[in-house]
This record gives sequence, C-alpha cells and structure tokens, in this order.
Amino acid sequence: VKVSDVGEFGLIDRLSKIVGEPGEGETWAGDDTAVLRAPSGTILFTTDLMIEGVHFDLEITGPKDLGYKAIAVNVSDIAAMGGTPRRALVSLGLKPQMEVEWIEDLYRGMQECASEFDMAIAGGDISRSDCLLISVALIGNPAGRLVIERRGARVGDALCVTGTLGEGAAGYRLLRAGIREREDLRRRHLRPTPRVREVVVLRRQLPSSMIDVSDGFAQDLLHLCRQSNVGAIVRADALPVVDLQGVELDRAPFDLALHGGEDYELIFTIPPNRVDEAIKVVKDETGTQISVVGEILAADRGVVLIEDTGESKLEARGWDHLQI
Amino acid sequence: VKVSDVGEFGLIDRLSKIVGEPGEGETWAGDDTAVLRAPSGTILFTTDLMIEGVHFDLEITGPKDLGYKAIAVNVSDIAAMGGTPRRALVSLGLKPQMEVEWIEDLYRGMQECASEFDMAIAGGDISRSDCLLISVALIGNPAGRLVIERRGARVGDALCVTGTLGEGAAGYRLLRAGIREREDLRRRHLRPTPRVREVVVLRRQLPSSMIDVSDGFAQDLLHLCRQSNVGAIVRADALPVVDLQGVELDRAPFDLALHGGEDYELIFTIPPNRVDEAIKVVKDETGTQISVVGEILAADRGVVLIEDTGESKLEARGWDHLQI
Repeated sequence: VKVSDVGEFGLIDRLSKIVGEPGEGETWAGDDTAVLRAPSGTILFTTDLMIEGVHFDLEITGPKDLGYKAIAVNVSDIAAMGGTPRRALVSLGLKPQMEVEWIEDLYRGMQECASEFDMAIAGGDISRSDCLLISVALIGNPAGRLVIERRGARVGDALCVTGTLGEGAAGYRLLRAGIREREDLRRRHLRPTPRVREVVVLRRQLPSSMIDVSDGFAQDLLHLCRQSNVGAIVRADALPVVDLQGVELDRAPFDLALHGGEDYELIFTIPPNRVDEAIKVVKDETGTQISVVGEILAADRGVVLIEDTGESKLEARGWDHLQI
Repeated sequence: VKVSDVGEFGLIDRLSKIVGEPGEGETWAGDDTAVLRAPSGTILFTTDLMIEGVHFDLEITGPKDLGYKAIAVNVSDIAAMGGTPRRALVSLGLKPQMEVEWIEDLYRGMQECASEFDMAIAGGDISRSDCLLISVALIGNPAGRLVIERRGARVGDALCVTGTLGEGAAGYRLLRAGIREREDLRRRHLRPTPRVREVVVLRRQLPSSMIDVSDGFAQDLLHLCRQSNVGAIVRADALPVVDLQGVELDRAPFDLALHGGEDYELIFTIPPNRVDEAIKVVKDETGTQISVVGEILAADRGVVLIEDTGESKLEARGWDHLQI
C-alpha cells in the first residue's frame, strides 16, 4: 500500500495506533494542538531535523533503526541539560510513492525509543515532499530547578566523558564499506543510546556543565569552553578511544574519537572533589564507565591537546551542517 | 553572501541577532536545548511543516511574508485551542547556494509575527537540504484550565465562524494569475492573521468547540463534527463568502469559501444563549465580525448544506497533504 493511496488522514489513523493513547488530561493527535500536562517551572525544548542524503542513507539504515535514532538524538539533547524527556511531536515529509508499511516501521522504531525512555509521541504533521525528512520537537523536564548548561564550567573543574568515543563514526564507516564484523559498532551508529539513565544518577553530583557529543568530541568541547568562557587541557592517553579490533578502517581510532561525531556520549565538567563519587555511582547504578580526560583552565590558555609528541591546539573538524 | 560561506554557526549567530535575547530565567540558542519558563498545569504543543513546491512557491512569495506565515499558521493552531502562543523552535532545511540575506529576511518576517503576538523564537536547528523547508514547533498557554477542543460541540449549539471565508484561496489564485487588483486578497494569502485577539475575548464566553480553517471550511467542519460525534446544518446564505468585486477567477466565491482553505478563521460552536454576547464583545473589542452559519444536530443527521436549490450532504474537497 502506498502513502498516496491511504492519504494524510488514513496514514495518521494507522500511526496513531502505534503510539498508543494518552492518559487522563492529555490529548495527542486529533486536534489543532496536543494538550499536555506540564510540571510547573522550567521546561526544556529541543528540535532536530533529519533529511535523507544529509543525515541518513537508506542503503545502510532501515526504517525501525531510523525511527529509533530520530527520537534518540533529541532525547540526548534533553539528557545533556540534565533532564528527562516527556513528549515529542513528529513531522514527516514523505514521498507519495512510499510504502505505508515502511512508515509504520519508522513509527515502530520511534515508539520503541519513546517507550524505553518513558516518553510519548503526542502528534505531529505529515506532508508530501520530494525529500524524505523527519523533524522531531521534544519537551522535557529538568530535575527540579537544576538545569545543566554548557556555560557552567569553572577553572579547576575535572573534564569528563561517559562511555567510548568514536564508535558511532566507526560504525558508520563499517556500514558504508559493507563490512560485516563488529556488529556492536554498527549498532552504535544505527541505534545510539542517549545517556538519560546516566544523567539521572550523575545530576545528583551536580556537574557544572554538560554537552552531548553529536558533532564530534573536539567540536563539542570547544562549544562548551566558548560558552563557559574557559580553556581546557585534554590528555590524549585518557580519552576512551574506540577499539577497532577485528576490522580495518581508513581513519585511525584516535581521529574518530576526536572528530567522528554521533557518539551521543556526554562531555561534562565537575568540581574535582566530586569526581570519584560521580564515577562510582554512575558505574554502580548504570554500568557506564566515566573517564576523566582533562581539566578546565582559564580562557587565555586555550583548549589544548596533550600527546606523547607534545602539545597542540585542539581544532574542530566535526560536522558543519551547511558545508559539505 | 551564500549560506555555504558562513556555515552553520555563522548563520546561527546572524539569526540570533534578529530574534533578540531572552529575559531572566530562559536560555534560547547556544545550548543543547532551549530552557523556558512554563506556567504550571497544561501546555499546548503544535508543529507545522512547510516545504517549497508543496506549501509555498517562491515565485509568488518573498522571504519576509513566508517567514511571517510559517509562524502565523502555528499561532493559529494555538488560538484554535483557546490559547496564546509562547515560544517557538524553527528548523530550516537550506540549499547551500542560498543567500544569507534571504534567510535573514525570512527570520525578520518570523520575528515580526512573533512580536505581534507577544511570543518568541527560542532556537531551532539548521541543515543543508535539497528541498527548502521550514518546520516550526510552538508551545502555548491555555487560559487557566480552559482548553477549547474540537470534540466539545453539543446538539443545539450555534455554529459560528469569524471573519470571511475564501479570501486566502482567492488571494492565492490572484497571485498565481499575476493579477494586480485586490491587494487585500493577495495579502490574506501571504500574511494570514491568526485570530489570537478574537480568541482572548471569545473564550470568556466559553465556546464548546473550535477549529481553525486551514484545509477548507467544509473539511475542517467535518473534522470538528466527527471529533464531537455530531451532525450539523450549514445555511449557505449565512456563510461570510469572499467578495470578488473587481477581479475574475475561474472558481466561484462560494466554492472558494467552502473548499479553499488557508483562511485561518475560526469555526466554533457555542450554546445559543451566549451567541449574541459573543458576537457583540468580539466586534466591540477586536472589530471582527462573527457569523452564525448553522446549528449542531445529532450525528445521525449528518452534515448538511442548505441552499436555495435544496439540501445536500456537505463534502470535503480541501487539502490532503499526501495526495496531489
């Protein structure tokens, strides 16, 4: 069955069944807007646009994984503010000749991610388009009044990162090359795990600043330092670099870790006296390793990478979504 | 200057200047998510996608009008729930060869609409794209606990509509035909006015249901009746039909009024004992005329159009965004 056969309202009916029914006091699809219960005070609000040929390639991604990821990248932004996700709206630009079953699988993947992180898809918009695109808008709650912004890093704070860097980019390259080894890496690209569970534990230790790794560790760290008006040292030997055992790629693991992007790990800073406890509780409660990879310095020191071979200025070579 | 010359972050810097700075307690661009102050209780959440060649045509629309409209259509959805708009996120899919000045004008038009309705653009996302597209997500406040849904119409309620029907569609056809008369109609297409001011007055009279006219009066009324599980009669001679004096079009005014779409007027229902007061206060406080165009009946009566020539079933011939 093609999208053009069932029409906009037929498709909305099918997709509504996948996302389920709202509880008391909420209205999802079927009205001019969604009606949502919101906590008082502060809300987090984010949006991410994914376009075929720019953000995804249907030769290496199926609809379920694509749907999962479209929600996950937005959830990661909420997590990076110390929050938890609540309700999403999804806009789809669809080619009329697409199969309805494909769109339903896309929605099943979105719903899988939504269920996993205890949030819901509360409606959206659907249009015909020559480019396949998915635009997600997501609101989330911070923990009470605590919002962990990029701009809170202070001189002397420890610089930390969750998990492993470069796996998302390595997985992408394996998929592109058609290499069947290391399914774990391919999965990191197709189904990134936003670090919501880690944040729920970590925020009790009051990190001073945080950002998620979407554009690449180097570029995202530079964003954080610029917003906080600080410098930093990064110790190369402390970075949790992707292990490429069993496969060969045209880029070095260290390069993927610094500049690969799409890891959806969290870079954060925290006063040194709380580092050990933060590492311990996150490991104990989620199993995720945190690495201390450097330290925050005064702004005039710049952002410096320390390797065996000497010091160098850390440069951004990550994504710019308007330049090819 | 081309978009590809300034890059994503250069463009964001320029656009941030147009939307201004947040007040105390909010963060707009520059972090993983926007941080917003929200009233406790209920929020309204909507999104609308606009794609070149589907929703707009750059041969008849300039960037300022396009930007204004992209915000206005979302504001209209919030108004149709009885609410007022608060904060929007804007995602843009841009062709790399586009002029930065064009994008700035687009944002100036968006900001003009935002200022007019006392809301703000709090961030968004920008990507390269082969299709020019604008995706807006908007949150709004209802008036206290009052949310005016589509599903609240009751048998015996008066069926009403604000303003005039068919002007948006007439303006579109004048623009397409290159006809220079009736600038007022062309403007109705290019810069529709969401009925926020009217709603702020009208909601004190407690309408039982409401929807905005985006797909066409007939289609949107059918949505409202289906959601409310009611029927209706519509008196053709009571419809506030567009006046085409001074121009000739290939479609009759009455046809444009029923099926034209993009009027962004409000269809609402209200108990008959409150109709006169509703008409009076909206006229007095906003200057906008309300027309009583029919009455809500039981569902088994269907939705019926009464003309001089007899009765007929009202059919939807408005937009389906997936069928051409």
